[in-house]
Amino acid sequence: MGMVGGGQGAFIGAIHRIAAQLDNQIELVCGAFSSDPDNAVASGKALYLEESRCYRSYQEMLKQEALLGDDKRMDMVVIVTPNFLHFPIAKMALEQGFHVMSDKPATVDLAEALALKDIIEQTGLLYGLTHTYTGYPMVKEAKARIKQGQLGKIKKVVVEYPQGWLANKNDENSKQAAWRLDPKKSGISCCMGDIGVHAANLAEYVTGLSITELCADLSTNVAGRLLDDDGTVLLRFNSGAQGTLQASQVSIGEENSLKLRVYGETASIEWSQLEPNTVLMKFADKPSQLIRAGVGEMDKITQANMRTPAGHPEGYLEAFANIYTQFSYQIRDRLFVDINASDANNSDLNTHDKAAINDVPGIESAIRGMAFIENVVAASQSEIKWHPFSLKPQKITLLNELDKG
Amino acid sequence: MGMVGGGQGAFIGAIHRIAAQLDNQIELVCGAFSSDPDNAVASGKALYLEESRCYRSYQEMLKQEALLGDDKRMDMVVIVTPNFLHFPIAKMALEQGFHVMSDKPATVDLAEALALKDIIEQTGLLYGLTHTYTGYPMVKEAKARIKQGQLGKIKKVVVEYPQGWLANKNDENSKQAAWRLDPKKSGISCCMGDIGVHAANLAEYVTGLSITELCADLSTNVAGRLLDDDGTVLLRFNSGAQGTLQASQVSIGEENSLKLRVYGETASIEWSQLEPNTVLMKFADKPSQLIRAGVGEMDKITQANMRTPAGHPEGYLEAFANIYTQFSYQIRDRLFVDINASDANNSDLNTHDKAAINDVPGIESAIRGMAFIENVVAASQSEIKWHPFSLKPQKITLLNELDKG
Amino acid sequence: MGMVGGGQGAFIGAIHRIAAQLDNQIELVCGAFSSDPDNAVASGKALYLEESRCYRSYQEMLKQEALLGDDKRMDMVVIVTPNFLHFPIAKMALEQGFHVMSDKPATVDLAEALALKDIIEQTGLLYGLTHTYTGYPMVKEAKARIKQGQLGKIKKVVVEYPQGWLANKNDENSKQAAWRLDPKKSGISCCMGDIGVHAANLAEYVTGLSITELCADLSTNVAGRLLDDDGTVLLRFNSGAQGTLQASQVSIGEENSLKLRVYGETASIEWSQLEPNTVLMKFADKPSQLIRAGVGEMDKITQANMRTPAGHPEGYLEAFANIYTQFSYQIRDRLFVDINASDANNSDLNTHDKAAINDVPGIESAIRGMAFIENVVAASQSEIKWHPFSLKPQKITLLNELDKG
Amino acid sequence: MGMVGGGQGAFIGAIHRIAAQLDNQIELVCGAFSSDPDNAVASGKALYLEESRCYRSYQEMLKQEALLGDDKRMDMVVIVTPNFLHFPIAKMALEQGFHVMSDKPATVDLAEALALKDIIEQTGLLYGLTHTYTGYPMVKEAKARIKQGQLGKIKKVVVEYPQGWLANKNDENSKQAAWRLDPKKSGISCCMGDIGVHAANLAEYVTGLSITELCADLSTNVAGRLLDDDGTVLLRFNSGAQGTLQASQVSIGEENSLKLRVYGETASIEWSQLEPNTVLMKFADKPSQLIRAGVGEMDKITQANMRTPAGHPEGYLEAFANIYTQFSYQIRDRLFVDINASDANNSDLNTHDKAAINDVPGIESAIRGMAFIENVVAASQSEIKWHPFSLKPQKITLLNELDKG
Repeated sequence: MGMVGGGQGAFIGAIHRIAAQLDNQIELVCGAFSSDPDNAVASGKALYLEESRCYRSYQEMLKQEALLGDDKRMDMVVIVTPNFLHFPIAKMALEQGFHVMSDKPATVDLAEALALKDIIEQTGLLYGLTHTYTGYPMVKEAKARIKQGQLGKIKKVVVEYPQGWLANKNDENSKQAAWRLDPKKSGISCCMGDIGVHAANLAEYVTGLSITELCADLSTNVAGRLLDDDGTVLLRFNSGAQGTLQASQVSIGEENSLKLRVYGETASIEWSQLEPNTVLMKFADKPSQLIRAGVGEMDKITQANMRTPAGHPEGYLEAFANIYTQFSYQIRDRLFVDINASDANNSDLNTHDKAAINDVPGIESAIRGMAFIENVVAASQSEIKWHPFSLKPQKITLLNELDKG
Repeated sequence: MGMVGGGQGAFIGAIHRIAAQLDNQIELVCGAFSSDPDNAVASGKALYLEESRCYRSYQEMLKQEALLGDDKRMDMVVIVTPNFLHFPIAKMALEQGFHVMSDKPATVDLAEALALKDIIEQTGLLYGLTHTYTGYPMVKEAKARIKQGQLGKIKKVVVEYPQGWLANKNDENSKQAAWRLDPKKSGISCCMGDIGVHAANLAEYVTGLSITELCADLSTNVAGRLLDDDGTVLLRFNSGAQGTLQASQVSIGEENSLKLRVYGETASIEWSQLEPNTVLMKFADKPSQLIRAGVGEMDKITQANMRTPAGHPEGYLEAFANIYTQFSYQIRDRLFVDINASDANNSDLNTHDKAAINDVPGIESAIRGMAFIENVVAASQSEIKWHPFSLKPQKITLLNELDKG
Repeated sequence: MGMVGGGQGAFIGAIHRIAAQLDNQIELVCGAFSSDPDNAVASGKALYLEESRCYRSYQEMLKQEALLGDDKRMDMVVIVTPNFLHFPIAKMALEQGFHVMSDKPATVDLAEALALKDIIEQTGLLYGLTHTYTGYPMVKEAKARIKQGQLGKIKKVVVEYPQGWLANKNDENSKQAAWRLDPKKSGISCCMGDIGVHAANLAEYVTGLSITELCADLSTNVAGRLLDDDGTVLLRFNSGAQGTLQASQVSIGEENSLKLRVYGETASIEWSQLEPNTVLMKFADKPSQLIRAGVGEMDKITQANMRTPAGHPEGYLEAFANIYTQFSYQIRDRLFVDINASDANNSDLNTHDKAAINDVPGIESAIRGMAFIENVVAASQSEIKWHPFSLKPQKITLLNELDKG
Repeated sequence: MGMVGGGQGAFIGAIHRIAAQLDNQIELVCGAFSSDPDNAVASGKALYLEESRCYRSYQEMLKQEALLGDDKRMDMVVIVTPNFLHFPIAKMALEQGFHVMSDKPATVDLAEALALKDIIEQTGLLYGLTHTYTGYPMVKEAKARIKQGQLGKIKKVVVEYPQGWLANKNDENSKQAAWRLDPKKSGISCCMGDIGVHAANLAEYVTGLSITELCADLSTNVAGRLLDDDGTVLLRFNSGAQGTLQASQVSIGEENSLKLRVYGETASIEWSQLEPNTVLMKFADKPSQLIRAGVGEMDKITQANMRTPAGHPEGYLEAFANIYTQFSYQIRDRLFVDINASDANNSDLNTHDKAAINDVPGIESAIRGMAFIENVVAASQSEIKWHPFSLKPQKITLLNELDKG
């Protein structure tokens, strides 16, 4: 793979590199690691890459790699830049014939995501989106149990994602804070675009339901900010189930506390990212069950995403790696027609199968994510309580424009 | 004290009796324990009361007791009936010269609560309301720390109260379910009236803030029910702080999971009723603190509401007892002018003082509680997002009327 | 009941009074609350007792009460003094015709406990011992499940009881520390006598097994102390099961962290006093179960010791009260021949039956407890690893005697 | 690196490969993955290795690699075979000029470990041992705080390591169970050799103390086993501190529950492998602190072993990787003289320094580990309570020999 962004000083690039290579199925062979050409090259060399493949810009990388032979050139491009660059890079990468794995949110707005879908369909290439939290084995276990009907009809979904890292003015000095709070680089939302979209994705992924209506209350809690840093959203799903979603970057003391609860007719399920190897299942009339990774029977897809036996905790990097590794199987599937024929080559993963491979978030998740962001912002700006969830671009007023008004 | 309601087969009556007498400051001397006269008398006898004071109706009790001498007759009446009887009993009790302790919600609607306030003011008697959860020592510790400014300005309040005991149709058979789901006995709300009001009270009690605006989404999740069994409310407080309140009786597997989180500028605080002896305090840049009852310095009011040293868990009954015991000191304060003079008589409680005594929820809490219920239901029926919190009775459409439409 | 000890300034007396009266089955009618006659009388008056029954010494109380009529005099004596007084008071109380409830450990040494047994048998009266922790409903639930065979044959028992309140020299200033560290008042052990004996009792109570052999390592961690303040004991039980017991008063930061784990062939069970309403049950090949008080079916004895529904935590005082209330039924059983006939009189407890009543720790527990203390101290003084558990008084060298050597 | 053992069907080999390569500092270039030559080659090919470097035996690998040029041949050998092969492989590897990283326990007995030390000293090469649990960042944080004196003088160490995977006869069918229970392959202990040694290492590592005396009680809980599957050890440390160590493979329902508690004069510390990103610190007179990875200031060595920000849990594989990555810096240090000069090349790790690099367990840990195993078994066979901890090989009777007697 080749990487765009993630040079020295960036945080998420290093995470992506560890995740992509963790299962020994993907190799970083080139990169354009920074918008600063010198830093881009220096970053690549620090990663032990061939100097000729430490590119000075993503355009250069995509053009040069396309000229290399099949056995040499990268198979896929990983995009780990600020949001506003996701679309142009993905577009050019696909057009040059490379599969794409993108950090989320997929694009800077919904219109771009819809355009991206067209390009993907035209090129016939693969596209993956790192909704990392769906990569956790026990998230997959929760999904499997719901799919099997262990909860009965779902009544209510409660998802929350509090963080505290932007609680105060002086938290804005980091590089990561700077672009996230800048509408030009981040899009129309900070909190909902950065983490609310993870929460919405997790809720839909685990339940298999789709949001159809919402009521939103976004807020900006520090003077001078142009984008939201906190929000609560009431939800209605296509099955009639209801839900609530809370996300915050100003909840002081909270680390990265994504938590999901799903209540059905006969049981409920709870999962928390801070202790990701446990699912708690509760019933009306019998003891709750602590379902621990590797203890008792696990779903086939869960197993395909685990590396260690019970009691040896896997974490965030492994969840991340699951998305990459399954995506690598998608690519190999293309290359070798039948993945089953190459089973012998993958001894380090417990198992893998079509269902696990197809579990990687793709362009549909990307579009729903961008639609979520736009619908939430639009709903928040409305005085009417309920807002229909639409897959069409929304009309939105930017905060600084409001301030002028 | 004398009790109205709480006869054989009732749950909450026994709880009140234990709580009231736990600190040896209050004695049950009479009662009208049931609307069924025979059951009323039998229940009283089973409690070892004098037969002559096992009354057949509350009217009889109030009249007869009023005729007894000062040294003999009860000082206060405890009301543990279904909601619709709270007001008439409290009214008659006050008019007959008795202090009143009432189960919550105070009345069946806001108009009654306002009328009750007038009667209290006219009679000059004492009125208490068993918002039990504010009786927990560590809730008081959280309040004290917020009051001292340990959190800085409050930004956000998140309170949730999920239960699962009314999740399904067949859960409606119990006596307790029956009247709570009957608008004639319960008022215009089931879930919000029964537990949402606790959550709102807890949020206002701990933070010292007042709700000024709300957006509500109530729902009824089982066919045939006339009242809400679940709801989410977005909140605005008088300081500008925001909040969310969730209450549910259909969240299967949840026991009685009242939980409060308050986020300030410099710290946040978390308390959960299922593990009531701990407050978790979190900060941006240093380790979280597990503040445990009795470990380290506790606020004076916290101490006045504890009986055991660290590591000897107190529970729900002790929280309940705190409200009764402090109320008994209010009464004694009236009787003996200066409570401090009688300190020697109260060796079983660590300490007590005016601040702790005045901490008992009274008619103001009662009115805000009834206003909360009416405003939430009105807000839920509105298509407009935000609804101002008003202390005036609200215009509300009952669900069964809607169904006819 | 009448109380000996527990006057103003004492901690445990107030706990006993709340516990004894919590279920409205026992009434405190008299007392000799202090070895200081003036304090004894003042303490009684502060508890609203008749002045004539606020006695100046236990001898006076026992003699005077014995002269009162059947309908007036106390039924039972509660002993809450330092250890060395337990035996003489219990002896005189029994000889004067009163049932006895004693704080633990039962006596100051094993010889006294054996003598006490003779007196009890001669008088035919009832004797109870407040091994409080066995009063917790979920401890009883654990016992019931083991008895039912849900764990299979027991392999291993791990019990630990760390406290930190005597960690340092300056912790010795309290009244409670002073007598516990004084061999004349406390007996031959501080840590094992005060809390180790609770741990041993809990292990035997829950498993139904008996200790037959032990290896002990007691230590004294603060200069100048004559008795142990920490210890670990390896155990063998009559079934062949093994175990470990740890108790400590110098484990800084620990509150009162009694915890029991029992491992069988097919399942294991875990209970912790700091969160007493949960039993965790684990299996080899299926999810662990969080068994919560009131959720799902509970054993009949468990139910007989609960007052609140699921999610309304009961605590230490309720566990304590269970011992008193069941003991009161034992007494009433004597008085009325058949307890079932008086069921109607006990509406405030869920249920009660012979099995629950007989669950109160008595003289056999008392003897095993004193034997545990003596055997542990003897084993600790031995250079040989294993020491047989004997019900005969042990030969022990006191630390200060050793120092002379 | 080259690997010995860890072929298809083995568990720990895959773990080592992920760990070694996670930080992109080490590359697997060859291997002799199985004692079955065909499986060895097939396993290597499945890992995408050059066919010429998929060796048929470790002897072949060591000889052939030694013949390759400096820029091509492996730098280090990783040994992941059953215990009895550790020594001969390490010996030959060192003699052929390769650094060695070995799975634990280092050798099959103490004599071998002592011999290994001589070889290491003679060759001047590097030797590392994967005591994985010391690789956790929060274990290092606990160690740092103790070193800084935050606990005062240490009084007591409590370490426990219960597992349940060998609880019953039918658990013996797995490959991993088979060799661990075979004295010829495993050495003189199963439970203590496999996990007790981790617990002892953790206790010494975190506290900086050394065991000087012990009293042991090992047992075998399933008929037909020749080695221990459970044990408790009482400890004395060189500072006079005391301790207990429990390890078990028959505690049904336990996963891999390594837990350490250290009690000092002024504070205590607690860490649990199942939730490895938290250290709990307790005090006598102020709230406990939940020290979470990445929240607040961390020690420099802790930071050097973290990859993710607060709230993004790292797990077992990352702890494992820390040992490998720091070891790779040791090697590089040798190659480039001054590691600081190559800082620019290591952008993916937060930082690294001499202290962190020297934190890798080496031959001294290996010798103490083997001595622990032998001393524990010898102590367990003694009828005398206390056994001095010695670094000389112990005289031990094997269980099957006992059976013959």
